[in-house]
Amino acid sequence: MLESLPAEVSIYEVGPRDGLQNEATVVPTDGKLQLIEALADAGLRRIEITSFVSPKWIPPLADSAEVAARVRRRPGVRYSALVPNAKGLDGARAAGLEEIAVFLSASETHNKKNVNKTIAETLEAFEAVIGPAREAGMRVRGYVSTVWGCPYEGDVDPKKAREIAQQLIGMGCYQVSLGDTIGVGTPLQTERIVDLMLDRIAPEALALHFHDTRGTALANALVGIARGIATIDASIGGLGGCPYAPGAAGNLATEDLVYMLDGLGVRHGVDLEKLVDAGELAQRLVGRELPGRFLKARLAERRAAAAR
Amino acid sequence: MLESLPAEVSIYEVGPRDGLQNEATVVPTDGKLQLIEALADAGLRRIEITSFVSPKWIPPLADSAEVAARVRRRPGVRYSALVPNAKGLDGARAAGLEEIAVFLSASETHNKKNVNKTIAETLEAFEAVIGPAREAGMRVRGYVSTVWGCPYEGDVDPKKAREIAQQLIGMGCYQVSLGDTIGVGTPLQTERIVDLMLDRIAPEALALHFHDTRGTALANALVGIARGIATIDASIGGLGGCPYAPGAAGNLATEDLVYMLDGLGVRHGVDLEKLVDAGELAQRLVGRELPGRFLKARLAERRAAAAR
Repeated sequence: MLESLPAEVSIYEVGPRDGLQNEATVVPTDGKLQLIEALADAGLRRIEITSFVSPKWIPPLADSAEVAARVRRRPGVRYSALVPNAKGLDGARAAGLEEIAVFLSASETHNKKNVNKTIAETLEAFEAVIGPAREAGMRVRGYVSTVWGCPYEGDVDPKKAREIAQQLIGMGCYQVSLGDTIGVGTPLQTERIVDLMLDRIAPEALALHFHDTRGTALANALVGIARGIATIDASIGGLGGCPYAPGAAGNLATEDLVYMLDGLGVRHGVDLEKLVDAGELAQRLVGRELPGRFLKARLAERRAAAAR
Repeated sequence: MLESLPAEVSIYEVGPRDGLQNEATVVPTDGKLQLIEALADAGLRRIEITSFVSPKWIPPLADSAEVAARVRRRPGVRYSALVPNAKGLDGARAAGLEEIAVFLSASETHNKKNVNKTIAETLEAFEAVIGPAREAGMRVRGYVSTVWGCPYEGDVDPKKAREIAQQLIGMGCYQVSLGDTIGVGTPLQTERIVDLMLDRIAPEALALHFHDTRGTALANALVGIARGIATIDASIGGLGGCPYAPGAAGNLATEDLVYMLDGLGVRHGVDLEKLVDAGELAQRLVGRELPGRFLKARLAERRAAAAR
């Protein structure tokens, strides 16, 4: 079943954005910058650093302009930010970012509750973001959330999600990340969704974004990779959570993904030990033990070695 | 990749044995019996309830004789216990158990440290256990541990593990459970090990036993199931741990496995809500939050519903 794996998988790190926006602790700007540095140190080449949404919506990321302006640019690393509208794009441009990400939901109810627009209205409003961003030479990524299930509607039609993804690509997104926002996805469902997407969309234009709410994130990622998807979103230490199940696990942990990729013989360019350093830093910054399994095991080994 | 799944997977629950033996908190006998009842209530039909090893080795299971004698027998449920030698077999027989499990390691160093015998000596000593147990009408299961890696030797030759498994089956074991004792296994490795085993051993005679130390347990189980292995060991709530990495995650959590099997459309006979009840009880008994992801999410949902 694992006979045709991609030679390389690109990890899109979302910890500083999707992770921190769902943490109860607000990390100070300097801490965020330190974390982003640690992630780049570990070899991550695509890092979503913040979100230019209204501070009223997401208070933990109220310092987006400062984070984006101050983050030290390294050659070969792409720093991006979530952007909901033209105002957000202005903020990202002013901060000198070269990549942004737009987002909407595959479920009408979730989209309405999230951005107070229908899906059609949201796509229409993206015209004022994606076009100008492209004209300004920026790369634009798209997120389609709740593809595996919606907290309000339950099942989501994957063909509807595919249409949205196709529209985003048609509008200028170089890649669309399909999200299991509430972490309900299972492997067979993932295989079916990915295969349906690949019937119309090139694998390079797709990424997968899993939450580990019910323990299936890594198994789902495995299935996606085995079907040829070569970009996986992940969050350092599994930073983040699920707004619909407070206390539940967050995003797929970057270290767990890297450990599995090593075992699969798939290249990724990340140094696992330095990633654990970044995970340890993330734990300190949010003041709690993060759910990432590999992180926990490796830190326990390090403690044991230090005690000897 | 998931085109030929088994119609049914049998879950072999090891929480009361492999889970509790690695917990810092010693659960009183009544609590153990309550947990075993809750597991049977949830629909589990194979439960490893204790271990007849010297209480000096595993103090948390020092009450094995009492647990095994007092556990309420239900029709259709098989209760088993770990047994290292003829004395252990006597204990299991005296308690009226119908199934035992013997264990050894695929790594010489690990086996030596664990039971102070070579692998050959261990297999020889099993003659005094497996034969008499079969003659007494008992079922005998075998464990081969460290198949995915050894804490002392590192890599383990899967062909050596296969030879041991074949010998156990030849001696009268109805099934051999292959263990990733330290939780280092990854999916491609799992596929290779399983395929190698299936070249010589029938799938019915094999089970897989994963630890989630590095987050790969469920992905490994998926690969094994997709290759036709229809018995998976699991532990309620992910009860247990790793003696080589204190603080790390324990066994594959039964609820996470059941949730994935539901998504795969594979029958298992377990009621997930009742399993969560058993997980909640296990948490209370050991006095800590267990690592199982589904358990955490479902308990969070229940708390949220109760607060509404």
